[in-house]
Amino acid sequence: MFFRKVIGLHSCREALKQRSPQELKQLYLKEGWEGSSALKKLESLAQSKKLKPKVISEKQFRRLLNFKNETHQGCLLEVDHQFPEIRLGELGESSTVLILDHIQDPKNLGAILRTAWLMSVSCVFLSSQKSAGLTPAVIKSASGAVEHIPIFIKSHLNSVIKELKKHSFWIYALSHSAKKNIWEENLEGKKAFVLGGEQSGLRPSLEKECDEFLSIKQKEGTASYNVSVAAGIALYEDKRQSFPLSKE
Amino acid sequence: MFFRKVIGLHSCREALKQRSPQELKQLYLKEGWEGSSALKKLESLAQSKKLKPKVISEKQFRRLLNFKNETHQGCLLEVDHQFPEIRLGELGESSTVLILDHIQDPKNLGAILRTAWLMSVSCVFLSSQKSAGLTPAVIKSASGAVEHIPIFIKSHLNSVIKELKKHSFWIYALSHSAKKNIWEENLEGKKAFVLGGEQSGLRPSLEKECDEFLSIKQKEGTASYNVSVAAGIALYEDKRQSFPLSKE
Repeated sequence: MFFRKVIGLHSCREALKQRSPQELKQLYLKEGWEGSSALKKLESLAQSKKLKPKVISEKQFRRLLNFKNETHQGCLLEVDHQFPEIRLGELGESSTVLILDHIQDPKNLGAILRTAWLMSVSCVFLSSQKSAGLTPAVIKSASGAVEHIPIFIKSHLNSVIKELKKHSFWIYALSHSAKKNIWEENLEGKKAFVLGGEQSGLRPSLEKECDEFLSIKQKEGTASYNVSVAAGIALYEDKRQSFPLSKE
Repeated sequence: MFFRKVIGLHSCREALKQRSPQELKQLYLKEGWEGSSALKKLESLAQSKKLKPKVISEKQFRRLLNFKNETHQGCLLEVDHQFPEIRLGELGESSTVLILDHIQDPKNLGAILRTAWLMSVSCVFLSSQKSAGLTPAVIKSASGAVEHIPIFIKSHLNSVIKELKKHSFWIYALSHSAKKNIWEENLEGKKAFVLGGEQSGLRPSLEKECDEFLSIKQKEGTASYNVSVAAGIALYEDKRQSFPLSKE
């Protein structure tokens, strides 16, 4: 079972909508919630799922969030939910998978998960080490994505890549030093995009498992795009190529 | 004159490289800087620009940063630099300009400026109100972009749009509810992309000044992309269309 703390209006609303009453453990609302129309809507939604909110103080919020300074927007939802197992062999012919190694900034990781959801990625693999993980801050920044897309935390991303290759996935690494522009590549078929962390980039041990390296055109050689921007562009290009209208 | 505090290794290095000795006012390094090869390189770079660094304590760093909890990475550079004036009428035929209204998250704003630089945007206009502004956190997250791209802070973005229109710029608003996908649009010619804030989106008063609305294909109607991801995708699509190879 995977227990998570969901904060933020968007994320709490999405979890209340998507999860079953059995998976919804507890909703906490901040004292004075009746004064906020957004929190009132959340309360009604909870009631419709047979969940009775508990009203708590800011101090109690802070304790539930381990005294981290996170903007919960007056709501915290405890969810007990297991991501559905994915059989890689059963994924469709144009499936896209995301592999995120050492993404440490919660807002970056959250933004990538949000993009992955909106771009219909099949699933996301995260490194268990040096990753922001599925913390309340990441879940909030993902804005509901965590309720929609299976996310697996793995200690060995190399094994994930090997498994994907067995099932005919083509493994693309995004690297600002790659010679080939992503728009020059035909992205048809099953594929995975691998992205490295903000500081260190892609680890050589992962890099050597990749089939091909792609870059996003940029003016200056030494700098690089923010990782959530790079992930967004790669997924956009994939979507654009696979969309009938774009092939006019 | 525009005085700014630059923090972070990338941003300080870029400022030391790009700015003239007259514009470089003071470099502060953290006690023990000699133990860091990155800070040592920064010190040499400063010396080559006739700038003698001042060594200060963590407490002094905190005071210089108004006690905001920002990761300065051991360096803070004070720069006195005016962005070169831009004559909109003199910008080239395929120029792209960015208009950012009420972007409040420093990391989002920084990531957008970084993308704008790497995608060769001509200049960026920021709203003076409800914007993160050019704070040390934004400058750090922009990773050197502020030294390369003219950024203008304006109290009336409407007037900016009117001025751009006079000079034959086509004004695109990015909106997740727009019917037209960005990849369906021919982005040739002079153009501006207008993006609204994380919370409120585009203000109606700005919206009515725009010529056309474009969306980025997404699975779910109510959610939307992180603003820095959306800006990145728009600038990427623009770049892709204007690049000769992509028109094969």
